[in-house]
Amino acid sequence: MQIITPSVEFITDLSTLDPKVIVDAGRTCYKANKLDYTPEEVDKFIRKLISCEHESPLEHLSFTVKFITDRGISHELVRHRLAAFTQESTRYVNYMKEKFGSEIACVLPDYAGEKLSEEALKVINKAFWQDEENYMTLIEMGVSPQFARSVLPTNLKTELVMTCNIREWRHILKLRCSPAAHPDIKYLCDKIYEELKKYHPYFVCDIDINKEDMHGF
Amino acid sequence: MQIITPSVEFITDLSTLDPKVIVDAGRTCYKANKLDYTPEEVDKFIRKLISCEHESPLEHLSFTVKFITDRGISHELVRHRLAAFTQESTRYVNYMKEKFGSEIACVLPDYAGEKLSEEALKVINKAFWQDEENYMTLIEMGVSPQFARSVLPTNLKTELVMTCNIREWRHILKLRCSPAAHPDIKYLCDKIYEELKKYHPYFVCDIDINKEDMHGF
Amino acid sequence: MQIITPSVEFITDLSTLDPKVIVDAGRTCYKANKLDYTPEEVDKFIRKLISCEHESPLEHLSFTVKFITDRGISHELVRHRLAAFTQESTRYVNYMKEKFGSEIACVLPDYAGEKLSEEALKVINKAFWQDEENYMTLIEMGVSPQFARSVLPTNLKTELVMTCNIREWRHILKLRCSPAAHPDIKYLCDKIYEELKKYHPYFVCDIDINKEDMHGF
Amino acid sequence: MQIITPSVEFITDLSTLDPKVIVDAGRTCYKANKLDYTPEEVDKFIRKLISCEHESPLEHLSFTVKFITDRGISHELVRHRLAAFTQESTRYVNYMKEKFGSEIACVLPDYAGEKLSEEALKVINKAFWQDEENYMTLIEMGVSPQFARSVLPTNLKTELVMTCNIREWRHILKLRCSPAAHPDIKYLCDKIYEELKKYHPYFVCDIDINKEDMHGF
Repeated sequence: MQIITPSVEFITDLSTLDPKVIVDAGRTCYKANKLDYTPEEVDKFIRKLISCEHESPLEHLSFTVKFITDRGISHELVRHRLAAFTQESTRYVNYMKEKFGSEIACVLPDYAGEKLSEEALKVINKAFWQDEENYMTLIEMGVSPQFARSVLPTNLKTELVMTCNIREWRHILKLRCSPAAHPDIKYLCDKIYEELKKYHPYFVCDIDINKEDMHGF
Repeated sequence: MQIITPSVEFITDLSTLDPKVIVDAGRTCYKANKLDYTPEEVDKFIRKLISCEHESPLEHLSFTVKFITDRGISHELVRHRLAAFTQESTRYVNYMKEKFGSEIACVLPDYAGEKLSEEALKVINKAFWQDEENYMTLIEMGVSPQFARSVLPTNLKTELVMTCNIREWRHILKLRCSPAAHPDIKYLCDKIYEELKKYHPYFVCDIDINKEDMHGF
Repeated sequence: MQIITPSVEFITDLSTLDPKVIVDAGRTCYKANKLDYTPEEVDKFIRKLISCEHESPLEHLSFTVKFITDRGISHELVRHRLAAFTQESTRYVNYMKEKFGSEIACVLPDYAGEKLSEEALKVINKAFWQDEENYMTLIEMGVSPQFARSVLPTNLKTELVMTCNIREWRHILKLRCSPAAHPDIKYLCDKIYEELKKYHPYFVCDIDINKEDMHGF
Repeated sequence: MQIITPSVEFITDLSTLDPKVIVDAGRTCYKANKLDYTPEEVDKFIRKLISCEHESPLEHLSFTVKFITDRGISHELVRHRLAAFTQESTRYVNYMKEKFGSEIACVLPDYAGEKLSEEALKVINKAFWQDEENYMTLIEMGVSPQFARSVLPTNLKTELVMTCNIREWRHILKLRCSPAAHPDIKYLCDKIYEELKKYHPYFVCDIDINKEDMHGF
């Protein structure tokens, strides 16, 4: 058993995302005059779309990330239905060392490490070792991975590639960066928020990740 | 810890589903003559829609089921994006007996009981008891359910209410009743197939749940 | 050419819609105590879901309407992607009287009759007669309906059967009952709003169809 | 009135589409060994995904086109619900020359020019001139564009920006390049098929645009 640090890998380099397609599309509605697309005009145009809730042009641009997280969090992520997902399979991956060069990897909860005591983390760590032992016993008995997975913990590490468009990412960030969200999904989505804000601040101009609200289911 | 038998509860009584809305909608396309909708005509009309792959009228009728299953299977079910889901939350439910009158419930894999040995089931059973003990230890330490869940097993019991339309149910049954599907999801989806076939055989007229194929991801 | 009055036909009788499935589903999340579902409790439960923006349980209930409207309005309606549509086909319907017992039917704009002068309506009426004449000439020349339709007007009458769930209907009513919406789509959607309000006021408790806002694209 | 030639503009340059994201995602499922991604390996990998109907990884790559077509065809295009659309608005565009520098543009049916006689095209052309005259009369009377549009013809030219992922484009091309499709939508979608085939033949390896089938609604 190994403990893995969760992370977000940007499969799409966000610095290369070109918002021109959104401006082009948005202007099609009104047959408006051609813009020269200075960065200032793009910034202003997109903020205006957002402020008047005309968000459909934001659907023309997408980006992809790979989450390394646990299966509790991935079960929440895949509930967003307007996205593409490809996830590591617990049916087809056999976590026996010999076969795939891997062993069971798990993720400790409370990624940011703010609340859990050393003592609690010890209990969790011990639990993961027990789970690995039980899984390996089952595999050695000839049980197939798709049945042996039943004893693997919620916080088994998983890899999840996810693509969606800017409009949907905005929706997801509003829900998942909320202080009411699970702290471990907020930890990951905050990273996406920060990367977007760094290169394309207009896309998240109305999102405050520290504001308490009703969301976070 | 208690072992639960998985099941499908039909929230919508399938005997009451009225396919008339599909016939009505389907005939709108062509402004066709009014049918009297004898059962024979309905049967024939719907089989014809299916045989010529004109399935969109099937989207006008939906039904709802509640799955009692494990979180490994539910993680597969929620990957169907053209459906509505409401699921028991591992963040908000505290499985301590005192609070909700519940204790941890789990589902043994291999529902139909065809492959796993008594010995393997014993290992799994023991693993679930360990998981419950670890979870309760964490809760007693003051760890919140959303962090304590990390040690709960993949086969923790979960309740999942799912609604989708006939076209999407057909797609799901084709994938999930396939012999290539996980046996535990096939077990549940076969029950839906049987119930549909009993009351509305035209809806599944082209689905053979015993035919090997490439599906089952 | 005949002028048709636009309308909404409720394929689903809204008085029979049973919100119990939403309550059932919503309570699954928390494994909450069984409710007896008095009308008061249902009303309160659904208003609470809406007020805390937990709208996903509203997706378990759907209803179907048939719009008789024009193809300008139907082009807007079908832009709602989380719905099922079946529409009269301009490819397969031949509007020659002999074949389908129909002639060309059109819808005057400004259904509610608030703005257009008699003079303007006369111009529009004349235009529709010209369009019919041109269409018939083409059909008589042997041109197929799918090419002859090119001269039919935007306000050709069309029938559109549409099904979606309560959450999506709420979204649509917020956009399409807005004073910023096209008056002819508002006219139809206001009828849906009124019918919903009559039988299930909790579903539209936060929607004010007279409030100016930014929506209405 | 001017007659416009319909076309497809590739907003995304298809030669720059990088299928690596699909391979990366597809391999996540199985934790398979790292590929070097030679063009041959990419080609083989994607053909295999398609041949075993494991198409979800194809959702991680999208492209955008702008259609210049008529509103009869656009009404068909927007029925594809798993896509993003932005379309020229007949509510907000005023086709009076003075305001937007435009006049009414129309598209003749039968783009490829295979079936319609000169005589039929003359009738259609005359019809479009009548429609323009009627529209202009209404605008001059002070009627707003959203009501005056009622007399504009089905084959009014429209611009439609459309984005979707490879899996959905494949679905659309199967339906819309079929000989059973409307010839004018096939004309446009064939261009997309050809461009995809030129740069990424694996994406359309199982699509035969000349094969008669049941599709084409």
